[in-house]
Amino acid sequence: MHKLLENIDEILLMGPGPSCIAPSVYSALSKPTLGHMDSDFINIMDAIKENLRILFQTENRLTVPMSGTGSAGMETCFVNLIETGDNVLILVNGVFAQRMADVASRLGANVDTIEFEWGTPVLADQVKDKLNEKDYQILGMIHAETSTGVCNPAEQISQLLAGSDTLYILDTVTSLGGIPVKIDEWGVDAVYSGSQKCLSCPPGLSPVSFSERAIQKLQNRKNKVPNWYLDLSMIINYWEGKKRAYHHTAPVNMLYGLCEALDLIMKEGMDHVFERHRKNHEALVKGIEGLGLNMLVRPDARLPMLNAITIPDGADDESVRTTLRKEYKIEIGAGLGPLAGKVWRIGLMGHTAREENVEKFLNALGKTL
Amino acid sequence: MHKLLENIDEILLMGPGPSCIAPSVYSALSKPTLGHMDSDFINIMDAIKENLRILFQTENRLTVPMSGTGSAGMETCFVNLIETGDNVLILVNGVFAQRMADVASRLGANVDTIEFEWGTPVLADQVKDKLNEKDYQILGMIHAETSTGVCNPAEQISQLLAGSDTLYILDTVTSLGGIPVKIDEWGVDAVYSGSQKCLSCPPGLSPVSFSERAIQKLQNRKNKVPNWYLDLSMIINYWEGKKRAYHHTAPVNMLYGLCEALDLIMKEGMDHVFERHRKNHEALVKGIEGLGLNMLVRPDARLPMLNAITIPDGADDESVRTTLRKEYKIEIGAGLGPLAGKVWRIGLMGHTAREENVEKFLNALGKTL
Repeated sequence: MHKLLENIDEILLMGPGPSCIAPSVYSALSKPTLGHMDSDFINIMDAIKENLRILFQTENRLTVPMSGTGSAGMETCFVNLIETGDNVLILVNGVFAQRMADVASRLGANVDTIEFEWGTPVLADQVKDKLNEKDYQILGMIHAETSTGVCNPAEQISQLLAGSDTLYILDTVTSLGGIPVKIDEWGVDAVYSGSQKCLSCPPGLSPVSFSERAIQKLQNRKNKVPNWYLDLSMIINYWEGKKRAYHHTAPVNMLYGLCEALDLIMKEGMDHVFERHRKNHEALVKGIEGLGLNMLVRPDARLPMLNAITIPDGADDESVRTTLRKEYKIEIGAGLGPLAGKVWRIGLMGHTAREENVEKFLNALGKTL
Repeated sequence: MHKLLENIDEILLMGPGPSCIAPSVYSALSKPTLGHMDSDFINIMDAIKENLRILFQTENRLTVPMSGTGSAGMETCFVNLIETGDNVLILVNGVFAQRMADVASRLGANVDTIEFEWGTPVLADQVKDKLNEKDYQILGMIHAETSTGVCNPAEQISQLLAGSDTLYILDTVTSLGGIPVKIDEWGVDAVYSGSQKCLSCPPGLSPVSFSERAIQKLQNRKNKVPNWYLDLSMIINYWEGKKRAYHHTAPVNMLYGLCEALDLIMKEGMDHVFERHRKNHEALVKGIEGLGLNMLVRPDARLPMLNAITIPDGADDESVRTTLRKEYKIEIGAGLGPLAGKVWRIGLMGHTAREENVEKFLNALGKTL
């Protein structure tokens, strides 16, 4: 084997994703490749759809993993649902909402944003005022903002949209599999996630789910989706129905990994998985505060799986991260955008969210500081 | 492990891709996941770029695997290079050229096509006439048409374009790694391939390469690329330079697989690999004709890695394929479009192109017919 591959270290992945992978997911990745139209493979696709529906808490028939990473999921939701000139409102309090605004603008939408301080959640009252001012075809929000560690009020925003024609696009890249995501209850019209966060599968897939209302908008488009690769009106015919139609060659082995990763969550039980994330987050916060450090986000808006720690005076951002990586084989994340150099981002996602990892990290950080 | 995954059969993949995977590529896929900004991972990225340049026979600095399957590579080339209103000429003699025309139309190009009979190659003289009639910003052609088994005259077309401003986009999804692909010599401006054909890595990645002229068009665009996920002007900053900039989370484990798959080709030697494809193709043709069957494509236009066999009178397309799959664990491909029910497509791609596989297939086909 190529020498660079032979010598890959096992790193404790405590950054913003990818997260640690369970042994059986690694094994699944290297199972023999099947043809993408093989009936045995189609059974695996069906198992994935079923478990994704459970995890998204939805009955949406159009619930499939896209053949790309989380950002491809974002692109999928916007490119299938935006038509030129649509009014789109994006609620911005971090990098990934900024990305939403960029994606939507490129697709010919009129994009408005409401900006909130990074490290604080979206405030529903300000959103309400904006919705009263203007008709929006689409509203986009990030549920778990990976750049700050903030949990945005997905349910509150859904209440503002109740009864309106505005489609609700929600990013659950970091939340899915770590905290409850209730697509049907919240009336979300299009949602996407990523395989490499709380699902603990390697990066490369992006589960998405579309409501019937979203499918209607897709089917009634004036023009074809301006993106062949991500056109759900064709992709659905590969993922559904008795006779499957070839669209593109699905990433077979990555889908094996996702199938196994979802199965592990189902076997442990979703509620147990969420509880494990919460407990390990609490242990981490306790330890961080015990070291005299502060969390960026106020307690009631914190995500369990992404913990932003304010870098203390006197500590050198990069050298601490380098020491953790080189001496302790632990990866943590740097700050992004205005938080670069100001925070470290500690992921407790999926298979990473275990007691021994929290202890190992706190120990290493204590010694490094 | 999920029972559907535990029981996956080892299938001899002799369809149009995915192809068989070498054991060390499977092992590479399940190596420990590294962070996408980890310096050890960046070394692996660099090794991939270097080997892709050798295989594409190019010095293009922008030579990277896109985080999607081959169709994402097609989308990448067109979406980065087309601006609204561009004149685009597509040479059509199969499904994948039709797809090119669809992709380009969706992006606001004025698309003209020249149609050639399926199973026959593109004729340069007709292309020359068309190029004399009208100025085209882009010409697109499929090198190895997977739907028919035809090799199109990539070099001849390059000669027609010499000295013009027309950008040349070439699809090498099925050719790369099986026959020579000479990007610089042929003056190709944008090329894409797929991981799951002659590279013998599972599906999920699409190597692309852009010439300096193509990069110039990208950099001088009037509008942003209308596709954030595939925007090479940003992706290049993740794949190149001393300080890498995060764009999206790269599919780490798939890239391990590609790194190893490329390394296997380099170790065997490109010329030996091409020769192995040629020899096994010849043995296959001999065996097919020995069974009294006919090849669809005339000898001088045949691809070694994709062999279209005319289904003989009296044989039932689907039941033959089902018997091969169920009783012999061999996958072959059905015909597409106008060739559905008329041909079988036999892949001899990468790790599949071995003597014992040709024998096993001929034996099984003989018994089945």
